[in-house]
Amino acid sequence: MRLTGISAVIFSLTMIPLAAAEDYVSEKVESEARKLIEMSLESTTGYEVVESLTTEVGARLAGSEAEARGREWGVAKFKELGFKNVRVEEFKIPYWERKFEEAEIVSPFPQKLLVTALGGSVATPVEGVEGEIVRFETLQAFKDAPMDSLEGKIVFVDEYMTRTQDGSGYGVAVQKRSGAAIEAGKRGALAALIRSVGTDTHRFPHTGQMRYADGIKQVPIAALSAPDADQLQRALKRGSVKVWLALDVESPGERTSGNVIAEIPGRTDEIVVIGGHLDSWDLGTGAVDDGAGIGITVGAAKMIMDLGKKPQRTIRVVMFGAEEVGLYGAKAYAEMHKDELSKHIVGAESDFGSGRIWRFETRFGEDKLGKAAEMQKILAPLGIAPGPNTASGGPDMIPISQMGVPVVTLKQNGWDYFDLHHTPDDTFDKIDQADMAQNVAAYAAFVWMAANMDGDFRATPAANEASE
Amino acid sequence: MRLTGISAVIFSLTMIPLAAAEDYVSEKVESEARKLIEMSLESTTGYEVVESLTTEVGARLAGSEAEARGREWGVAKFKELGFKNVRVEEFKIPYWERKFEEAEIVSPFPQKLLVTALGGSVATPVEGVEGEIVRFETLQAFKDAPMDSLEGKIVFVDEYMTRTQDGSGYGVAVQKRSGAAIEAGKRGALAALIRSVGTDTHRFPHTGQMRYADGIKQVPIAALSAPDADQLQRALKRGSVKVWLALDVESPGERTSGNVIAEIPGRTDEIVVIGGHLDSWDLGTGAVDDGAGIGITVGAAKMIMDLGKKPQRTIRVVMFGAEEVGLYGAKAYAEMHKDELSKHIVGAESDFGSGRIWRFETRFGEDKLGKAAEMQKILAPLGIAPGPNTASGGPDMIPISQMGVPVVTLKQNGWDYFDLHHTPDDTFDKIDQADMAQNVAAYAAFVWMAANMDGDFRATPAANEASE
Repeated sequence: MRLTGISAVIFSLTMIPLAAAEDYVSEKVESEARKLIEMSLESTTGYEVVESLTTEVGARLAGSEAEARGREWGVAKFKELGFKNVRVEEFKIPYWERKFEEAEIVSPFPQKLLVTALGGSVATPVEGVEGEIVRFETLQAFKDAPMDSLEGKIVFVDEYMTRTQDGSGYGVAVQKRSGAAIEAGKRGALAALIRSVGTDTHRFPHTGQMRYADGIKQVPIAALSAPDADQLQRALKRGSVKVWLALDVESPGERTSGNVIAEIPGRTDEIVVIGGHLDSWDLGTGAVDDGAGIGITVGAAKMIMDLGKKPQRTIRVVMFGAEEVGLYGAKAYAEMHKDELSKHIVGAESDFGSGRIWRFETRFGEDKLGKAAEMQKILAPLGIAPGPNTASGGPDMIPISQMGVPVVTLKQNGWDYFDLHHTPDDTFDKIDQADMAQNVAAYAAFVWMAANMDGDFRATPAANEASE
Repeated sequence: MRLTGISAVIFSLTMIPLAAAEDYVSEKVESEARKLIEMSLESTTGYEVVESLTTEVGARLAGSEAEARGREWGVAKFKELGFKNVRVEEFKIPYWERKFEEAEIVSPFPQKLLVTALGGSVATPVEGVEGEIVRFETLQAFKDAPMDSLEGKIVFVDEYMTRTQDGSGYGVAVQKRSGAAIEAGKRGALAALIRSVGTDTHRFPHTGQMRYADGIKQVPIAALSAPDADQLQRALKRGSVKVWLALDVESPGERTSGNVIAEIPGRTDEIVVIGGHLDSWDLGTGAVDDGAGIGITVGAAKMIMDLGKKPQRTIRVVMFGAEEVGLYGAKAYAEMHKDELSKHIVGAESDFGSGRIWRFETRFGEDKLGKAAEMQKILAPLGIAPGPNTASGGPDMIPISQMGVPVVTLKQNGWDYFDLHHTPDDTFDKIDQADMAQNVAAYAAFVWMAANMDGDFRATPAANEASE
């Protein structure tokens, strides 16, 4: 059922006409959804939730005491807003924390470089490492280069990220964040530096999780801000450049993280699940990543409570823990709730900042796409276009999506998202109140429709066979 | 002769008609000036000079080894470009250097705050200081508050800076940077924090020189980035807030700084002096402040050399040292050259970034304003309007202006300047090549006219009497 990119595009083009004849959302539910949109656009609840989280907790590194305070905040916030069945589901994660990071061009032009360790990186020796820079234009160029020894050298992968509305530039650029240390390790390099995975031109290095591979030397890795990567590139145009890098990190073993869960109970045991992730990287206060997602989904559910009508299905809101460091909360949720996943009608996570939603994407059974079209029609006045049937549902939906739960992505405009993503600059002032309200409106309407429509979004076996 | 603001405006309105009848610039010089504009707009020399300085030297804190490397760079660059009489004029300055800076909200919401020590601040004790925050909306509100003891407290002056084209917001906002530590000292506070003197919303605290006053307790002072000031403000809205601040600085006494000077010799011993300042703050690489000014003035003089004609008057280009920490280079220049200041026909410093020049301001004898109008007419096609006769000439011109040397300010658009000013984000990528070329063109044309016009810009005693 996983469509390829091309077939998805073809399908999305034919989706609307196919659906036009049907009428899946009752007039009553449709009118309630429109009312929710109206209420949400006048509400500041979502915005205030982000303000509260980012101010009263601040940065929330996975597994840290701050993340634990975030869970306390989440429980209190859910209760304050009137949610039911508020609880924390704990799990363990490997903990990693940055302690110190510094870099310098040693020669020929001594000066500081602004760097940040990637999440999961090992430390350098305490005195740092010093080596000649070997630059590669892209990760692919690095992979394609002869397997010569880079002993005593520091690798610099200078790959740029493309700014896009849909965030597709990230998928390409993030491979260098995941893969550069492995390639450097294969060649025995001292350390690796990457141009930050980001689209801004400010002096903020972007952090983010990296990976090592079994049996390959673990080399320390850090990101340079874009201006520092430019500087290193300019220095290299003049000849050989030596850099000193010192990273100190702490990996003391396991720590507790957890998902904070709350509900608006419905009349059945079926579940519509939405949420965002509670953890953030340590550098900023996690406003766009992912305070916004928390604010949007909590805000939308609050609108539904304010509507004063009991939904058919239970609406569950999850603040996932430890997303940034490897989807630990998502995996724990899928494991802990595996017996009720067949009752999960649909899921959606908001984890792409606070930009306006411009497209309604689904991953439904193909015979259920008429329902997607029906929902999109209600969302259209918010400026939301129909989208393909290849939605991920957001990072924390991936495990349950892989286990068969239909998902939607209310796709946000990510044009500016990677200017802030994983930097110190991810702070509350970057959130636009009107954009937040549009997001809340779309989620509230979508959730209300999903919770009150007849039937589900899974492919029916017969219809599925017929369409294949 | 120092006009007040209002009389200057009135004067500037009447300047053009008065001047229209005269013709101070010969047709030959006018045509050469136009040729220089044409050449400059096609040249990248000024831009390349900034690239070279910011890459090959980087940050250049006054009195540091990096500033000394900057002087070596300056000498080499002047020689490479064909300037004559290249030399360094050294002087001593009190040295100050930042070592360490960190701050945290201790309670009720533990989290980091991003701060930077202001230049000249004393250190805190090594364990830092911790105290309750007392916030003042503005420096004036702080001054106006009852002289109650603030022992054990940390003062927070949360004054905003207004974004303006002409930089006038800085004059107001910078008073808090100069004055907050003195007011805090009078009341015995532990430390002082200010909202950065800046117009951006990024997580960069802005440094800059502060002052103490004799006989008043010296309290350590740091700037918060705008998002951190916002955060502290939000926390304070919820009640009492405790902050911990640790600053370490080094003030080991005197160090050497210097002005780097070069010339295009003329036929007379009269001098037209232009320049920028070579030192920068330590956080960025000093691209807009003031690599740009170095690039613009060196680039303009290079255009004149490329014209291949010997000027009447000598054109002198000065890279001033130690501007940021108290105009030491400017004062040293005035002192070392006091005997030839009567031969200084006019001076101009470029020290306001790389934005386009939009106004031609002078401080000439009132009877010489026809000459200003004539020059402005030649500059007008670059989008440069006539300005008032109250120019400062730029910070490093103040001492010689006060000693009677006429000055001009080729006023740049400073709309974005204070987004970058004194932050780590002041890097080469922020410089626009076309804007630089417009600046170089205006300087080249102005300098050529000033160096080749008959007569000077000082008030003639008789005319002066008549006009008063």
